[in-house]
Amino acid sequence: PPGRKVLIVYAHQEPKSLNGSLKRVAVEELSKQGCSVTVSDLYAMQFEPRATRNDIVGCLHNSEEFNYAVETWEAYKRGGLSSDVSEEQRKVQEADLLIFQFPLYWFSMPAIMKGWMDRVLVQGFAHEFPNCYDSGLLKNKLSLFSFTTGGSEEMYAKGGISGDIRYLLWPMQHGIMHFCGVKVLAPHICFAPEYVSEEKRKEMLNAWAQRLKTIWKEEPINCSPEWYFK
Amino acid sequence: PPGRKVLIVYAHQEPKSLNGSLKRVAVEELSKQGCSVTVSDLYAMQFEPRATRNDIVGCLHNSEEFNYAVETWEAYKRGGLSSDVSEEQRKVQEADLLIFQFPLYWFSMPAIMKGWMDRVLVQGFAHEFPNCYDSGLLKNKLSLFSFTTGGSEEMYAKGGISGDIRYLLWPMQHGIMHFCGVKVLAPHICFAPEYVSEEKRKEMLNAWAQRLKTIWKEEPINCSPEWYFK
Repeated sequence: PPGRKVLIVYAHQEPKSLNGSLKRVAVEELSKQGCSVTVSDLYAMQFEPRATRNDIVGCLHNSEEFNYAVETWEAYKRGGLSSDVSEEQRKVQEADLLIFQFPLYWFSMPAIMKGWMDRVLVQGFAHEFPNCYDSGLLKNKLSLFSFTTGGSEEMYAKGGISGDIRYLLWPMQHGIMHFCGVKVLAPHICFAPEYVSEEKRKEMLNAWAQRLKTIWKEEPINCSPEWYFK
Repeated sequence: PPGRKVLIVYAHQEPKSLNGSLKRVAVEELSKQGCSVTVSDLYAMQFEPRATRNDIVGCLHNSEEFNYAVETWEAYKRGGLSSDVSEEQRKVQEADLLIFQFPLYWFSMPAIMKGWMDRVLVQGFAHEFPNCYDSGLLKNKLSLFSFTTGGSEEMYAKGGISGDIRYLLWPMQHGIMHFCGVKVLAPHICFAPEYVSEEKRKEMLNAWAQRLKTIWKEEPINCSPEWYFK
């Protein structure tokens, strides 16, 4: 609906890929609804995935023994995180919905997106003990993991060789988003797009556009072990 | 035993950290046994985690639409992967045992190590359909994930707020190592070292050294859903 803000964190090297098209479809559909949509195109930005001392501007809290979690927490509090990180935090802060669009790499997100999680969701900003899980600092936001796979739906079935696809969603949805208090909408999965017809790929794009039409009416999943491991 | 080769892939920014000490202890103990030990110190190497066109030397197989998996597969076959990737592949090829030493970041490995997986374990080298899982191309090798956590053992218990620690091992152990045919030894986990005494941290280092004394007698875990989700 008008006024809602969406951040799409997107990790694919090729605009012509299905991931590129899924991202474009989301921008179009959500904009049409009157949402304000921001895209972090990680490869185009050459986003830095490594968590290093460079993320802290100025002096360290303890330069004798570098502790990334402590240093970024301290730096956040005094406004001393590097500008690429604080810019992403500003986008997250403004967003009502975070969409992560990527190809599944090794049962997880590509390293460039994992680096976005590692560097952006620092203590003080996204969580601050005991404010984690249901009381995480990013509560009242929604998230959605939208991704493509190499393996087929059969391989990712319960009893399939790669196991239920939900098993691999646990670290991303529960370990990251839920930990920060962000509610999780059902994932959107396009299985093995490289092995289907052009027509089937168009159906995949249509299905995503259709889902987005009613996305604001969806209820989050119950992000607990039962959902993942029944 | 003499002659065995070990590759330690290590991801911590600070040599004085517990991860740094765990790495050092492993180098010392395994060298003492007569093993030949190689360390890939990812932060010190400023290892590139991003999967990009730069990983392919020379012309692309299809420059109209960049597909990382296809391009790296083709490049591998003609010896055209970038030198940092092929150097890591050489180390993997020679190793009998791969040890991954890292602090847990967001229920997974730090992005710099995920990038090592994304870029080094390319098709043709580590797997090549249908040679995956038990027939993966890196069979006859062992792997071991050794890591520290922020959360306590209670948080990572079954029924704990963060769920059984085994849940988050699925993508790393099954989705990556098992997929490539690598057998998986039981993980080595140091829970919440930042919240225990210096003496307890010394015990953690000792326990690791002790375990390594008989590491070559260990049997791999049964890397199937039952181990993870019972």
